[in-house]
Amino acid sequence: MNVIPAAIGATQDVIDTPALIVDLDALDRNIARMAAFCRTAGVALRPHAKTHKCPAIARRQVAAGAVGQCCQKVGEAEALVRGGIRDVLVSNEVVGTAKLRRLAALAQEATIALCFDDAAQVDAASRAAVELGVEMDGLVEIEVGMQRCGIVAGQPACDLARRIADAPGLRFRGLQAYHGSAQHLTRQAEREHAIDGAANAVRATLAALDRAGLRCAVVSGAGTGTFALEGASGLWTELQAGSYVFMDTEYARIEGKDGRPYAAFEHSLFVLASVMSVPAADRAIVDAGLKSYSGERGLPWVHGRPGVAAVGMSDEHGKLALGPDAAQLRLGDQVMLIPGHCDPTVNLHDWYVGVRNGRVEALWPITARGASS
Amino acid sequence: MNVIPAAIGATQDVIDTPALIVDLDALDRNIARMAAFCRTAGVALRPHAKTHKCPAIARRQVAAGAVGQCCQKVGEAEALVRGGIRDVLVSNEVVGTAKLRRLAALAQEATIALCFDDAAQVDAASRAAVELGVEMDGLVEIEVGMQRCGIVAGQPACDLARRIADAPGLRFRGLQAYHGSAQHLTRQAEREHAIDGAANAVRATLAALDRAGLRCAVVSGAGTGTFALEGASGLWTELQAGSYVFMDTEYARIEGKDGRPYAAFEHSLFVLASVMSVPAADRAIVDAGLKSYSGERGLPWVHGRPGVAAVGMSDEHGKLALGPDAAQLRLGDQVMLIPGHCDPTVNLHDWYVGVRNGRVEALWPITARGASS
Repeated sequence: MNVIPAAIGATQDVIDTPALIVDLDALDRNIARMAAFCRTAGVALRPHAKTHKCPAIARRQVAAGAVGQCCQKVGEAEALVRGGIRDVLVSNEVVGTAKLRRLAALAQEATIALCFDDAAQVDAASRAAVELGVEMDGLVEIEVGMQRCGIVAGQPACDLARRIADAPGLRFRGLQAYHGSAQHLTRQAEREHAIDGAANAVRATLAALDRAGLRCAVVSGAGTGTFALEGASGLWTELQAGSYVFMDTEYARIEGKDGRPYAAFEHSLFVLASVMSVPAADRAIVDAGLKSYSGERGLPWVHGRPGVAAVGMSDEHGKLALGPDAAQLRLGDQVMLIPGHCDPTVNLHDWYVGVRNGRVEALWPITARGASS
Repeated sequence: MNVIPAAIGATQDVIDTPALIVDLDALDRNIARMAAFCRTAGVALRPHAKTHKCPAIARRQVAAGAVGQCCQKVGEAEALVRGGIRDVLVSNEVVGTAKLRRLAALAQEATIALCFDDAAQVDAASRAAVELGVEMDGLVEIEVGMQRCGIVAGQPACDLARRIADAPGLRFRGLQAYHGSAQHLTRQAEREHAIDGAANAVRATLAALDRAGLRCAVVSGAGTGTFALEGASGLWTELQAGSYVFMDTEYARIEGKDGRPYAAFEHSLFVLASVMSVPAADRAIVDAGLKSYSGERGLPWVHGRPGVAAVGMSDEHGKLALGPDAAQLRLGDQVMLIPGHCDPTVNLHDWYVGVRNGRVEALWPITARGASS
């Protein structure tokens, strides 16, 4: 229903704003860089589609070597399968008969996996799989330190794995071991400490599974802040990083090994805004606010305009302060904003406008936008 | 594209989650209460559609006496006119030929107004109106203390009004005088002080307009935090409150006259979530996170479950802590969350599920969802 903000071939200056812009060169480099890391580390890459919510980007990741995608919601899995992705892990628990049936229906045409941390959910998923005449892979999600979902590691996790292995319509495939709250710890040493703890939980569970004679084909987890740690651990077989394709200010604020800003990936995602009011020499207002970028991780950064900073955001406005050396901003001037948090920012938009060399090269619908169910 | 979360007549317990729920009784009372205030105060009500983004609710407000709607974006105005609203003020600047033409096209079938704080914008809007063969109303937005858009009050505002009055295709209608940053000041005395300042800006401008012989038919402004002040001022003729239909935790945290919580309106908007994991006795995880409510004003409140509090939100999860006296939560249990900030929360959803007496009575598409352009 919303206006498509651009036409293929148009120059960037005529894109209707606000618009969600992807720098295609930077995107391609990010995708290639993570693919190369995983090849070298000898681990599989299953990028998280909760970031981009878009089969067009998923297909580029798969073309670069990713084994498939993961996502958090059944609606996201539907969007991915409809967009040609053949292997999808819902890295999350799925509760309720209606949702389990929707997921099982997808298993009629793709390899589908989901996570469990409770025996009752195993039984419910098994019933849905049997009803639909499919098999789904089950991963046991273990608690690795983030205190969100996840069963206690070790023997309780092993018992749940046994239940999956024994359930009609389900196959036990491995472990979901994702430490979300480790991703944005500022210092490398803090992230290492967190992932050391997660590794201990994985080790304890693998030992219990081994004693029980249950084969664990996959240990899946990691994010853009810690993937190098899980990748080098010898425990994780599959990395789930998502934000690396875009980056955001939150990831840009964490530090690398040497204490300098974390620079593994480039910013490729921007909210393009236009100046709509210049009420004073040191202030400009742009037409993009909380309807165009999420605000819970702070103000966006202004890209490529020295001396200009975002100092306020309301629902439909962004307030910019111009320092003494900043170039003047005029009505209609475009400003590129780097969002604080890429995933929920993407969730506000219907289209990516892919730009290369100043021209619109791609218009990708964000088909899992709003797919929360 | 997204799943409609309910069927008319269904009981609340079978609504697919996450879903955006409207308590229709509370909504109706809120609408009636504000309408009654405005009748008594002798001011017009032009509720802000940036809150609900939905013609179905706009029509209810108009049926209760509102003169029309205001909104912030051309796309929102399009959704309102398509939904049967005959009088729409874009309470904002509109920059760019494409957007001005879209707005002028709406003036072929509805009364359309927009705001100005710069002479160049008056000329551009005039050209669009003449091209489309329509007339649009113009309001001068004046700076009243929030330091966002708005021309300096008094003579500069009056000069801009003259330019509107003289521009082909435009009519000078009045002043836009909205103090957004006053709305959430905690104490009544702070809000009074802010609106006193805004009133001085309005007075100075009215005096200049009077000297210039320009008739000012409308002074429009106010929000849910301050409407009683503008309504009693004798200056404002039209109130633009929006959030009163729903309320949120941010408005619930401000204090009324007596220092007690502000209780003019009821919470009618909820994010309905389901428990998807109960990994520990004192913790439950629900299936609604930042994809279902905006987080920049803090955690949602848990409604109607004593001893249960939201303590964490990630993109697709909400973390609840259960106190010692809280009733147990089980997988699949529904939890009603009151969002921190209603406007950007609504912007995440495609449908309102209207509930009365425990049953779904209405399914309203949120047609201005994502209409940021």
